[in-house]
Amino acid sequence: MTHADKPIKNVLFIMADQLRWDYLGCYGHPSIKTPHIDALAKRGVRFANAFVQGPVCGASRMSTYTGRYVTSHGSAWNFVPLAVSQKTMGDHLRPHGVRCAVVGKTHVEADKEGAARLGIDTTQDPGRLVMHGGFEPYERDDGIWPPGFKVQGNPYCDYLRQQGYGGDNPWHDWANSSQGEDGELHSGWQLRWAREPARIAEEHSETPYMTNRAMDFIREQGDRPWVLHLSYIKPHWPYVVPAPYHDMYGPEDVLPAQRSEGERVDPHPVYRGFMDYTPSTTFSQEEVRQTVIPTYMGLITQVDDHIGRLMQFLQETGRDQDTLIVFTSDHGDYLGDHWMGEKELFHDAIVKVPLIVVDPRHSADASRGSVCDAIVESIDLAPTFLDALGLPQPAEWLEGASLQPLLHGQSGLWRKDQAVSENTFAFRDCVRLPIGAPVDRCNMTMVRTHEWKYVHVDGLRPMLFDLLNDPQELHDLGASPEHAAVREQMQRRLLDWLFCRRRTTGISPVGIETWNKRELKAGIDIGVW
Amino acid sequence: MTHADKPIKNVLFIMADQLRWDYLGCYGHPSIKTPHIDALAKRGVRFANAFVQGPVCGASRMSTYTGRYVTSHGSAWNFVPLAVSQKTMGDHLRPHGVRCAVVGKTHVEADKEGAARLGIDTTQDPGRLVMHGGFEPYERDDGIWPPGFKVQGNPYCDYLRQQGYGGDNPWHDWANSSQGEDGELHSGWQLRWAREPARIAEEHSETPYMTNRAMDFIREQGDRPWVLHLSYIKPHWPYVVPAPYHDMYGPEDVLPAQRSEGERVDPHPVYRGFMDYTPSTTFSQEEVRQTVIPTYMGLITQVDDHIGRLMQFLQETGRDQDTLIVFTSDHGDYLGDHWMGEKELFHDAIVKVPLIVVDPRHSADASRGSVCDAIVESIDLAPTFLDALGLPQPAEWLEGASLQPLLHGQSGLWRKDQAVSENTFAFRDCVRLPIGAPVDRCNMTMVRTHEWKYVHVDGLRPMLFDLLNDPQELHDLGASPEHAAVREQMQRRLLDWLFCRRRTTGISPVGIETWNKRELKAGIDIGVW
Repeated sequence: MTHADKPIKNVLFIMADQLRWDYLGCYGHPSIKTPHIDALAKRGVRFANAFVQGPVCGASRMSTYTGRYVTSHGSAWNFVPLAVSQKTMGDHLRPHGVRCAVVGKTHVEADKEGAARLGIDTTQDPGRLVMHGGFEPYERDDGIWPPGFKVQGNPYCDYLRQQGYGGDNPWHDWANSSQGEDGELHSGWQLRWAREPARIAEEHSETPYMTNRAMDFIREQGDRPWVLHLSYIKPHWPYVVPAPYHDMYGPEDVLPAQRSEGERVDPHPVYRGFMDYTPSTTFSQEEVRQTVIPTYMGLITQVDDHIGRLMQFLQETGRDQDTLIVFTSDHGDYLGDHWMGEKELFHDAIVKVPLIVVDPRHSADASRGSVCDAIVESIDLAPTFLDALGLPQPAEWLEGASLQPLLHGQSGLWRKDQAVSENTFAFRDCVRLPIGAPVDRCNMTMVRTHEWKYVHVDGLRPMLFDLLNDPQELHDLGASPEHAAVREQMQRRLLDWLFCRRRTTGISPVGIETWNKRELKAGIDIGVW
Repeated sequence: MTHADKPIKNVLFIMADQLRWDYLGCYGHPSIKTPHIDALAKRGVRFANAFVQGPVCGASRMSTYTGRYVTSHGSAWNFVPLAVSQKTMGDHLRPHGVRCAVVGKTHVEADKEGAARLGIDTTQDPGRLVMHGGFEPYERDDGIWPPGFKVQGNPYCDYLRQQGYGGDNPWHDWANSSQGEDGELHSGWQLRWAREPARIAEEHSETPYMTNRAMDFIREQGDRPWVLHLSYIKPHWPYVVPAPYHDMYGPEDVLPAQRSEGERVDPHPVYRGFMDYTPSTTFSQEEVRQTVIPTYMGLITQVDDHIGRLMQFLQETGRDQDTLIVFTSDHGDYLGDHWMGEKELFHDAIVKVPLIVVDPRHSADASRGSVCDAIVESIDLAPTFLDALGLPQPAEWLEGASLQPLLHGQSGLWRKDQAVSENTFAFRDCVRLPIGAPVDRCNMTMVRTHEWKYVHVDGLRPMLFDLLNDPQELHDLGASPEHAAVREQMQRRLLDWLFCRRRTTGISPVGIETWNKRELKAGIDIGVW
């Protein structure tokens, strides 16, 4: 059991990619093996209602890294540049002498146009850091190289080549492919090969490699304070995993899809469009689920095993005594639920994520092993890190709130009663074109309480789910005449939320509060007779 | 009469500061003399429903310069830095070889923190331009030096010293003060001295000086294309003007205040707070109005005279043939209307501004001398300038629309049917403290159609005015039970407006539209079996 008198000096911020909240033992999955993550839950607080601010990687992560909602940071989807003037957790930490680095994926799209326009030198700090969302790229690797892509300058691919996995794209050809009986390549991008083992020794695959690099960083940093974002690319597709994880699970571990025939009757036009998206049509086939889900589970258990290794390393180095440990995900994966594949909409399978926080301090002892039902958001993490390290939380930037009250048995201080998540369907032709919406009118915004989930959709009717009576979200009440009052109330929540976004970042609340006095002191005395 | 076949090469963008829409002859004032501005209206289109996006200088101007609403650019009030990554009209013009400069006031507050954090060198371009909101500071002068302030490095003050007006603050002590019978200084900051002439020869005062500098720029630029923002500091306070303008008008020219006793009965808490603000209590006294308004009118006529001089210069140099001329203001001045002084709220006295556009091309001949009733906004100016110059209008940044259809007799193409204006009462203790609102919950947003004006106020009831039956806005219907349906409809307008703000500036609409195709081309083919 962790319990220390030492102040927090470091934060180990672990993120898995595309990991559903309910595919962990401690979150109730009946057969998945995640003993090391479950052990973290026993040492800390497990959040049962943690939500991401966007249902795709990019938007979600930019919110987590900035502590700001998507509408405030503006990086509304994958590969939309994060404007150079947006501050991320690294920008808030570094001036206080805390090294903030990433090992693995961030999905930060650099605002090269902004940098060029402003004459920022991106070859050296601070410009270089801006290109990486404020994270020192200790081992930045966003992964995902399509078949045939010539990968150059990627340390993991260079490492693979050193181990004898050659070619233009060893990431794809070895770590993320399997092979047929005659040695032919079976690309991991094709779901049909998911049950075959990756063409790589387990120790050389991405998850152990990134874990090793995290240890390198922690070892190198010694007693100097740090925040390390260890960001696993897995269990994100390609769904392929090395032995022995490839056959650790079988069809008997595949839970029934959460879906109903009723969902396909006169669905919301946006939902209909996403049901027509290729990953949705494939994952709606049972054969695909039976093939992919065991491998998805194997990828998770592999991550779990290496988290176990990392935890042992922390214990051996004593770092478990002064390090806040956070484990979470950037969004889920439909896996055939709701006749959907991939992500992009707002069912809990996507926007609810696992979140476990281990605070080694005595002040957190009472909450160890507990489950917190409060609604929390991933924008709350950056404020939590700053708070744990005893650093200021600039309110003109941060829209989240520190989770510390919930970790230290002061849940009465927690005010948040809703989560917001945003996306746009502008980038998906299969959704946008049938609707005929211009790309700037494709906004979707979810507000979710314990009782209701409401999704505002530009120019179309909203979606609405009654979470108490329909926890599986199978009945969209967005057009139900009996629910007009609920929709109005949820719309009012959205309007209030929209009006208090932190868009005025150039002056602090204290600066505003003291403005009148400073104005008078400067002799700006207006309208006197 | 202007009419030319030449394409537009230049834009002369003239702004007066704190000039009410109804204090010009062509806008119907019964006695003010503004023949040269009236002549512009005869040569172009006079807009009868032009609105600014903020009722204070800073927020309004940042919207005009960026072509973006306040909530999108974030500079929510005076002296709130404009984030370095916000693009202004200069940033859109300069890459196309158009020189974009300012003579006079911009009120741009430089984002020095952002520049330092990003390692931007602000001593040279492009960093230097960023510090000035993208305008080349040909003669930047934001004016307004409080009494006793030691002014250094200001060209106009240096000019005054050269003319023999000495001291630490010649702007205040000579150009913006008068003197008593014993030669004692009467500061223009005190309203009681408004009728006395400024201690300066008219030719040395600010308005002729800035006009001369504009001519210097135009002359220097020759045939190369330019956009010049000639931004007069007048008729903004201090209300003091040199002879002969100081006694050109008298109490007989002062119109009755637009106010009613009913407005003081149980007013909206925000309105009540602003009525308690010093300029409001002074301007509610008739003696103050009688003293100040004639001088306010004199300042306007002085501006008009120098605009006449400038127009003659354009004609003599032939620049009238290839220059789009725009005349507008950044907001109005209550002058005692509604028991208010200064600005900050949303009555038409403040948010409606004069706007005259002279397009010398033949294509605009049919609209010359006409009055346009369409609702237009100051964010429409930047797109208009780009359009007139034949340059692209980047839709990911610009939230306004080019006025060209309204200038070229194609008003059927104009879609806008509402204006939005935003402010915060966070900076005014006399408003915020009695209400007890935290500084981040003081947002006010007006949406105005031809029929209704609705003001959303954070945490408080809205304000509502029936513009058809109460054009003077004397009856706030924000709490009227009979108007619930109207308020709901206006709230819906606000929600729709908020949801389609241009916050995703890093990718163009075309970039989004073609995303799917580019994704597939790159081999990103997700979820295939």
